[in-house]
Amino acid sequence: MIRMNRQAILHIPKSNYAFPIAPRVLRIRLRTAKGDIDKVRLVIGNQYRWNTRGEYPMEKFGSDGMFDYYQCEHRCEDPRLGYYFLIQKGEEELIYTENGFLEPGSVDIDHDRIGFVHFQFPFINEIDIHQKPSWVNETVFYQIFPERFYNGDHSRDPEEICKWGEKPERHNYFGGDLSGIIQKLPYLAELGVNALYLTPIFEALSNHKYDTIDYTRIDPHFGDESTLVELVQRAHEKGIRIMLDGVFNHCGGCFRQFQDVVAHGEDSPYRDWFRIYSFPVTFDPLNFDGFGTTPFVPSSEAVRAYPPEIRKKFCMPKLNTENPEVREYLLGAVAKWTRTGIDGWRLDVADEVDACFWREFRRTVRGINPDAIIIGENWWNSQPWLRGDQFDGVMNYAVQRSSVLYFAREKIGPKTFEENLTEYLMRYSDQANDSMLNLLDSHDTARFFNDCGGEKGKLKNAAVFQYTYVGMPCTYYGTEIGMTGENDPDCRKTFDWNEANWDKDLFSFYQKLISLRKTRKALQYGTIRFWSTETVFLMERTFEGERLIIAINNTAKPQSCQLPCESGKELLGGEKLGENGELALAPYSSAIVEADR
Amino acid sequence: MIRMNRQAILHIPKSNYAFPIAPRVLRIRLRTAKGDIDKVRLVIGNQYRWNTRGEYPMEKFGSDGMFDYYQCEHRCEDPRLGYYFLIQKGEEELIYTENGFLEPGSVDIDHDRIGFVHFQFPFINEIDIHQKPSWVNETVFYQIFPERFYNGDHSRDPEEICKWGEKPERHNYFGGDLSGIIQKLPYLAELGVNALYLTPIFEALSNHKYDTIDYTRIDPHFGDESTLVELVQRAHEKGIRIMLDGVFNHCGGCFRQFQDVVAHGEDSPYRDWFRIYSFPVTFDPLNFDGFGTTPFVPSSEAVRAYPPEIRKKFCMPKLNTENPEVREYLLGAVAKWTRTGIDGWRLDVADEVDACFWREFRRTVRGINPDAIIIGENWWNSQPWLRGDQFDGVMNYAVQRSSVLYFAREKIGPKTFEENLTEYLMRYSDQANDSMLNLLDSHDTARFFNDCGGEKGKLKNAAVFQYTYVGMPCTYYGTEIGMTGENDPDCRKTFDWNEANWDKDLFSFYQKLISLRKTRKALQYGTIRFWSTETVFLMERTFEGERLIIAINNTAKPQSCQLPCESGKELLGGEKLGENGELALAPYSSAIVEADR
Repeated sequence: MIRMNRQAILHIPKSNYAFPIAPRVLRIRLRTAKGDIDKVRLVIGNQYRWNTRGEYPMEKFGSDGMFDYYQCEHRCEDPRLGYYFLIQKGEEELIYTENGFLEPGSVDIDHDRIGFVHFQFPFINEIDIHQKPSWVNETVFYQIFPERFYNGDHSRDPEEICKWGEKPERHNYFGGDLSGIIQKLPYLAELGVNALYLTPIFEALSNHKYDTIDYTRIDPHFGDESTLVELVQRAHEKGIRIMLDGVFNHCGGCFRQFQDVVAHGEDSPYRDWFRIYSFPVTFDPLNFDGFGTTPFVPSSEAVRAYPPEIRKKFCMPKLNTENPEVREYLLGAVAKWTRTGIDGWRLDVADEVDACFWREFRRTVRGINPDAIIIGENWWNSQPWLRGDQFDGVMNYAVQRSSVLYFAREKIGPKTFEENLTEYLMRYSDQANDSMLNLLDSHDTARFFNDCGGEKGKLKNAAVFQYTYVGMPCTYYGTEIGMTGENDPDCRKTFDWNEANWDKDLFSFYQKLISLRKTRKALQYGTIRFWSTETVFLMERTFEGERLIIAINNTAKPQSCQLPCESGKELLGGEKLGENGELALAPYSSAIVEADR
Repeated sequence: MIRMNRQAILHIPKSNYAFPIAPRVLRIRLRTAKGDIDKVRLVIGNQYRWNTRGEYPMEKFGSDGMFDYYQCEHRCEDPRLGYYFLIQKGEEELIYTENGFLEPGSVDIDHDRIGFVHFQFPFINEIDIHQKPSWVNETVFYQIFPERFYNGDHSRDPEEICKWGEKPERHNYFGGDLSGIIQKLPYLAELGVNALYLTPIFEALSNHKYDTIDYTRIDPHFGDESTLVELVQRAHEKGIRIMLDGVFNHCGGCFRQFQDVVAHGEDSPYRDWFRIYSFPVTFDPLNFDGFGTTPFVPSSEAVRAYPPEIRKKFCMPKLNTENPEVREYLLGAVAKWTRTGIDGWRLDVADEVDACFWREFRRTVRGINPDAIIIGENWWNSQPWLRGDQFDGVMNYAVQRSSVLYFAREKIGPKTFEENLTEYLMRYSDQANDSMLNLLDSHDTARFFNDCGGEKGKLKNAAVFQYTYVGMPCTYYGTEIGMTGENDPDCRKTFDWNEANWDKDLFSFYQKLISLRKTRKALQYGTIRFWSTETVFLMERTFEGERLIIAINNTAKPQSCQLPCESGKELLGGEKLGENGELALAPYSSAIVEADR
């Protein structure tokens, strides 16, 4: 008999393995080696009234490449919980506790406070529960790069602008603005999205506006405060929410407080707003920390190739958010803009800013709008930021990368994709998973379609996945009409408003997906389960009897698969379900099947 | 060839497996299956200048029952770090990353941003680094239960007091007070301790004072504000710090604000200061949350056996620390007492209070005294509270329980004890480990000596361990003179000031240990390493060339062992070191050997 792989078994108290989803509901997870364990039960009760404990089965949620994940929801009356696991493999049964493994009967669980140390969740305090906004599950985001979406007010154009449609460069302008977004709200409503993520709109020199000059002012090329207020109101009238982009890791080289330090050196009252190592400020070499740069590590050749004047103007000094004056200034601006009625913030380079700042940021924003969303730009495992005290979700680059590998590049198959998704879901709480901004691409990547080698079916498949998966789908502007582009600056082309150039089929497809996402509770709130085969990605979402099964063939050949239901109706207008739940899928195509009840 | 146990390998970014110990120094740890791996190297560099990365060996710190732990310290110039691990077993070498395991050569580490996802520590922000107080490594604590230490002011005696020396009961009084502690400072200085932990001293009904009536007032039986100020000043003059006990999870049934709700029901302005489920307040059954109790779960028989009047007086209503008014009241009191010059707080039932409260608590206390200590009463794995934003350390009950099992009850051997210690050390950051309050017993346990079956050598051995281990030793009052007692109330006997009754040998032994701890840098700051055999506990502390080796024979037989040094000097005045580092130890005895340089 091969004994269980004890070293693979993992539970971490008060973490993504044990968290409250409501004041009296705890989610508990356990990780075991893949395929190793037969049965897991949770024994849980009031830790001061140990005789209240009961034994509950844990369900296997899924597997990644190495592990199985079990979980359950525990409803309790008293929020002081003690628990342990009973883990079974064949004849072997072990008790798993905070102090490791015990053989059943080897200790007196009821009375030995020295030899038996269970796990605990000491008390569920409501204030510590991650409160996601009420609306995340029903939300479909659309990301806009304002300078390139639509030029709605020529009176606000920058001095030199290129002709709409010309090639985007790092430092050219096209005149897109907030009025343009307002004017195109009917288009967005027609597409069906109900939330916009705007990259930065505050005063800045560059076209991308990630180099803020004044946090308290809308960029004059984009509009003014009243334009933003109008945008928010008009969007809200159409049921569309607005999320702004907050850049608090760094400012622009032309930020007035930084310019004051450049001019007055250590006599400037703003000298401690940045991380400057000597005075006066120098630019070649830089003697201050910047976005991704420090004086101690030479800049890359790419950066050094820019002329000094450009480097000076476009440098992005790191803000010293540990300085209370800086916090007060930035959070004052945050409060001001949050009060305009916006619905939340996406936070640039969020992982390089201190946690104290983010906690105060959350208190500020949620104090004004308790239902506002906070999304971090974190490309790596973001568990430390998603415990409920900082962000609601992050830009889901982990899933984005896996989507590129599976759908666009075909480097991995559906099984591996499903395993990756399982691992990513298990990294975070349910609330964080629901609040993820699920993207295929952004202003910081090549456009997804460019990775598809011209195969539109791959993009459609990826979109089907994106709009049916857990978390908020976010489509980068223009994807729905077939826009292409390599990484920055090429992914920031102007939106082509000449409908004749649109991929109308793709547009309708997006409309249909968005509509499904907005109307089907199973896609919004459903529990998720994977059933992939070697050739077909299969995922189920279930909510109160509504069962939707998503089947994706991302290969160049026809494939068929057995759905986990006997009969049902296909919702994308594609393949019909065969006898006994058999489904045939054309190359690079998908189906969303509603199982008959 | 048996391949490595991949599932046993664990690293969690931004956790106890990766944390800064200084602005440009990161501690990185990796867990592997016990005895499985030959070699681990860390590859780390600036994540935006990936070519700055270098390869560094990781050292095996130690093992617990199932795992080996590797660690290293990485000094960096740029605090934006990307890293991965190279793990070797025989011919097998794997790269371990955030996305799991990779075969060397299977991806382009330098350029593939989709297929290769390293671990990251995105930025070391100073404000997020756990700052332990500057003095913890040199500190030796002594815990006092004021009502039972010394009656220094009879004018403040409770109405009915028992004769000093009589049997302690749950609800009797002996008259100990703050003046008593002041008068006994010379005794404490003679013993050598340099910090006192006082159980609560604020106005309360009980003898233990964990049922606060008024957080802004010293208990009149103990003294008044000027007595506390005098105690702090006189103690500081002798180099002795004072840590108070803060009880913010619950108050006493006679807390004035609670009494107001009892009197006025839902009309009381304090109705939301507690967790009351209906009005009026009732006591049988309770209709409000209390310390360890909730209306939904019946009280234990032991509690129900008390007469209703006692239950009413001694109930401990849970405070609603989520209510801003409660926070303001409690933190106002905290600020007031912190300003008297005390050196920190021990926090009662700390794990049941919300994290938001504790973060604000830390800001309040550290804002007044940046060098104050904060110790939680947490009996379980306390990692979530020890990330630097809440507590510095906790009462180290994990080590306390293991000490009882090894030294007192002989239920485990030195190897298992060492494995337990290794696991506990790896749970926390270096700063937290240094800030642990290491106890053998307290007012909430039986006295350690009672568990030793009369064998004083066991207590001495445990003390040798306690005073040479990482963290702050804390001796419960009277242990040094041989006091005994079962769990509460018996462990709260009056201190016997008749020297004729003291165990003078034990007292001298404690004096010697305390002196060693206060004078030897290796015991304060030394790195730790374990060398235990099947019969002897062996531990080494090393600091700048000073090497102390602690050897403990906790068996009834003589034992000998080979020290990891050839020659040296024994510091406890016991056994001499034999040829080539051989050491003979009498039954239940210890040695502290300073290795020759």
